[in-house]
Amino acid sequence: MKDQTVDQGKRSFLKTAAVGAGAAAAATVAAPAIAQRNITWRMVTTWPRNFPGLGVGAQRLADRITAMSGGRLTVRVFAAGELVPALQSFDAVIEGSAEMSHGAAYYWQNKSQATSFFTGVPYGMTSRELSAWVRFMGGQEIWDKVYDQFGVKGFLSGDTGTQAGGWFRREIKSLADIQGINFRTPGLGGQVWSRMGANVTNMAAGEIYQALQSGALDAAEFVGPYNDLALGFHQICKEYYLPSFIEPGLATELVVNKSKFAALPQDLQRIVEIACQAEYDQVASDFYANDPVALKTLVERHGVNLRTFPEDLLEAGAKASMDIVNELRQHRDPLTRETAESFVKNFNLLRTRTELVDQRFGLAREKYIKYT
Amino acid sequence: MKDQTVDQGKRSFLKTAAVGAGAAAAATVAAPAIAQRNITWRMVTTWPRNFPGLGVGAQRLADRITAMSGGRLTVRVFAAGELVPALQSFDAVIEGSAEMSHGAAYYWQNKSQATSFFTGVPYGMTSRELSAWVRFMGGQEIWDKVYDQFGVKGFLSGDTGTQAGGWFRREIKSLADIQGINFRTPGLGGQVWSRMGANVTNMAAGEIYQALQSGALDAAEFVGPYNDLALGFHQICKEYYLPSFIEPGLATELVVNKSKFAALPQDLQRIVEIACQAEYDQVASDFYANDPVALKTLVERHGVNLRTFPEDLLEAGAKASMDIVNELRQHRDPLTRETAESFVKNFNLLRTRTELVDQRFGLAREKYIKYT
Repeated sequence: MKDQTVDQGKRSFLKTAAVGAGAAAAATVAAPAIAQRNITWRMVTTWPRNFPGLGVGAQRLADRITAMSGGRLTVRVFAAGELVPALQSFDAVIEGSAEMSHGAAYYWQNKSQATSFFTGVPYGMTSRELSAWVRFMGGQEIWDKVYDQFGVKGFLSGDTGTQAGGWFRREIKSLADIQGINFRTPGLGGQVWSRMGANVTNMAAGEIYQALQSGALDAAEFVGPYNDLALGFHQICKEYYLPSFIEPGLATELVVNKSKFAALPQDLQRIVEIACQAEYDQVASDFYANDPVALKTLVERHGVNLRTFPEDLLEAGAKASMDIVNELRQHRDPLTRETAESFVKNFNLLRTRTELVDQRFGLAREKYIKYT
Repeated sequence: MKDQTVDQGKRSFLKTAAVGAGAAAAATVAAPAIAQRNITWRMVTTWPRNFPGLGVGAQRLADRITAMSGGRLTVRVFAAGELVPALQSFDAVIEGSAEMSHGAAYYWQNKSQATSFFTGVPYGMTSRELSAWVRFMGGQEIWDKVYDQFGVKGFLSGDTGTQAGGWFRREIKSLADIQGINFRTPGLGGQVWSRMGANVTNMAAGEIYQALQSGALDAAEFVGPYNDLALGFHQICKEYYLPSFIEPGLATELVVNKSKFAALPQDLQRIVEIACQAEYDQVASDFYANDPVALKTLVERHGVNLRTFPEDLLEAGAKASMDIVNELRQHRDPLTRETAESFVKNFNLLRTRTELVDQRFGLAREKYIKYT
């Protein structure tokens, strides 16, 4: 099960790099100043190099931009820590030590609470609903206003789809069982679990395994089967809860320096923008293809128990999620209020199709279709 | 609710066309022969001009390719009937009267029964599952083998998402109520309804309204709320059934002449391929954003009753769907057998994530989340 597109991308880049360089050198007569030479841009990322789904997606996005531009815009990728630490990627683009950052908008909550809505909020929009809002219901325009404050522009560049709920050392039979447990889960989802009674902490991907092993953590939530299998949590915890209700999707973003982006020729601007949209599909396809394979391995080879959260926990999580979103609708920052209002208004519309059409189709298919 | 990307695309095209022409004229020294001049390609489509979602998507795809290539590959769109009749688009690409065709693979079932799998089959893959199969589980490679027979190559270029079940003059309370009714529904879905006992006919979009009005049709299924509202079926039928079980998604395709595609410079090849993938997301976003708006209008302004098919009908439809797919697994054409086997094998994997994660999240959200 390999990614043909990546392979094609690499071949295409090798072949076209020379052509691109030649064409650009020759194009000095009529093209505007900025198009006269090949440009190299630095993309810093919040992901480890070759991180399944997400780090791989950042590299593929860079390769696609380079290939489509025939090398006129060559993008060099720096994994987390290679040029700047993961959580300084956004600032690197503001300050100019990189032209692009690949990460998740909700990492920048300390700059604006509105950012969460462009990554995903607890019990919020799925990846399909999010792209509908961003592309056709005014979401991008609001996001642009939020990022204008920092002189950058954001594009959706991937999505994990709905995530897994987390790894627990012991079975969770009711809301009472999560009171006071040490649970690793970040962002607004962490706030939800905290309000439900868990003792929430955050830590980087690489630290989780050891913290579970030492007993510092009772439970941890990361992404989903594809990433979680790679990190080995199943070696310590056997109770795997699906789905997450706090991460109905996690959208990644490409952030570009706004003035540098505006100075690009229009064809290169369009290449960056459209490459991001293609990656939104490609990253999701990667997760949808590889999650079930990993899930099968976890169950059949590693004896993991697949569980669903008990109803009282799902209900308490929903109450906490709605409270948090409703508080953001009353936030002191006008742009956060505007973002939250647009999100809720369009969420109420979008869910009608999801529930009446997608959900009901899925239930009928689950009930009646069986192929051997 | 406007599509910003389309507007941007048009502006970008107008601005870059001149630049692209200049750059290409100047690039005569180092670039290979084929890159020395601007190329204009004809895209014939199976859609009426400006047809919501699908025809609009074909035009936007053409505009995006033109814009990203700075006009080096300029794509002119011909709506159904403008250059060739809708259902001769594929042949036009084979014969060379057009370089590209935008339509749906299952229109070419008379050439290969395998084509249905790349559009969508009854009770089959959703749009997310289809792209996972095509991009990461070998689907594209099989599709390439199927289309190699005709000297063309196909790319996914859009998806409607799960469709509506259809418009009925009278409420359907059980499987008995659809026996012998005249129902408009095409393709494999039509075969399913036929095996269930309906009298199935196909006719073009523009003929349906009148056939419903005259009583020649008792019921009709087309796409979903966004398109159906535009065609006015609610003026005759008030019983609207959601969801469709025969069209869990309808993927559109871009078909290109294989040898002409191979002769393009690599950067233009990548632009075509990646523009198609971005459109796969953009078209789906359009439907997910506009279907619920249309649905609200149908119910609140036109008094349409939203209904779900009765269980015995859903079950009989599932049996007929599985029979048809299983027959295709035994088809005399080896490539159709190979396509059907790959589809079923990967469907069985993909559905585990959909059912354990996406479905269960959706149900919890439907049950517990309510924003006012």
